[in-house]
Amino acid sequence: MKQQVNFVTFATRDLDAARRFYVGALGWKPLLDVEGEIVFFQLGAGQVLGFFDADKFNRDLGTGEDRSRVSGVTLAHNVGSREEVVAVVSAMAAGGGRMLKVPQDGDFGGVFHGLVEDPNGVIWEVAHNPGWGVLADGTVVFGQEE
Amino acid sequence: MKQQVNFVTFATRDLDAARRFYVGALGWKPLLDVEGEIVFFQLGAGQVLGFFDADKFNRDLGTGEDRSRVSGVTLAHNVGSREEVVAVVSAMAAGGGRMLKVPQDGDFGGVFHGLVEDPNGVIWEVAHNPGWGVLADGTVVFGQEE
Repeated sequence: MKQQVNFVTFATRDLDAARRFYVGALGWKPLLDVEGEIVFFQLGAGQVLGFFDADKFNRDLGTGEDRSRVSGVTLAHNVGSREEVVAVVSAMAAGGGRMLKVPQDGDFGGVFHGLVEDPNGVIWEVAHNPGWGVLADGTVVFGQEE
Repeated sequence: MKQQVNFVTFATRDLDAARRFYVGALGWKPLLDVEGEIVFFQLGAGQVLGFFDADKFNRDLGTGEDRSRVSGVTLAHNVGSREEVVAVVSAMAAGGGRMLKVPQDGDFGGVFHGLVEDPNGVIWEVAHNPGWGVLADGTVVFGQEE
């Protein structure tokens, strides 16, 4: 099995709130937006982030349980400096995100980071990690700070 | 804010089970493996999937709550045919995954898919979608089936 993810999909109680946050506040462009069902954003080559109506998410899983509460996962967005961490976290909070951790040095991985929860419970870590690097071919490298 | 995710990180109650499943059963190669803390796998250019010890995950969030139960999210892995869906889902189930949905036509998006939960509650959708395409520059396109 290839090490590849094509969709990261979150159950979403309030699709309009997701639109206001990602499109309105953060300036993202939807790849596909289906009223009452799902909003997709392209994240990288061949990869999409989806916000999927919570009831349809449960129906699609088909287990009969409600598994729509978002928990146990974070998305991280790396930036080039501490100042950028503060700027992105501030934009998220101003756009309706809930600040979980104001930017500060983290306990793990040598990062300076802030944490913001989106209107549907998706937690973003915005981080500056001096030990993080990406080679020309896309390979991630962790430096000595790790 | 760029539309970019550098880490997708899951709270993980049993790191060794994650190693057995992804490395042992699926043949993935860790990018970095820190005993008792985290295992990272490279997913794509500049992007990493992490399995992070659940207690440390909670400590890193710092909200004082237990937010380590994985819920409300799926990862999807697209393959080129229905037969490949069956093959990948079978390999996941044989390797310790829990089958949530045997491969079948889905209700949404024109997919043929199966769903398997990994040993720590991360749900994978393995899908063949005839309407899915990726252009040479990485742009995702949805065909008429969507």
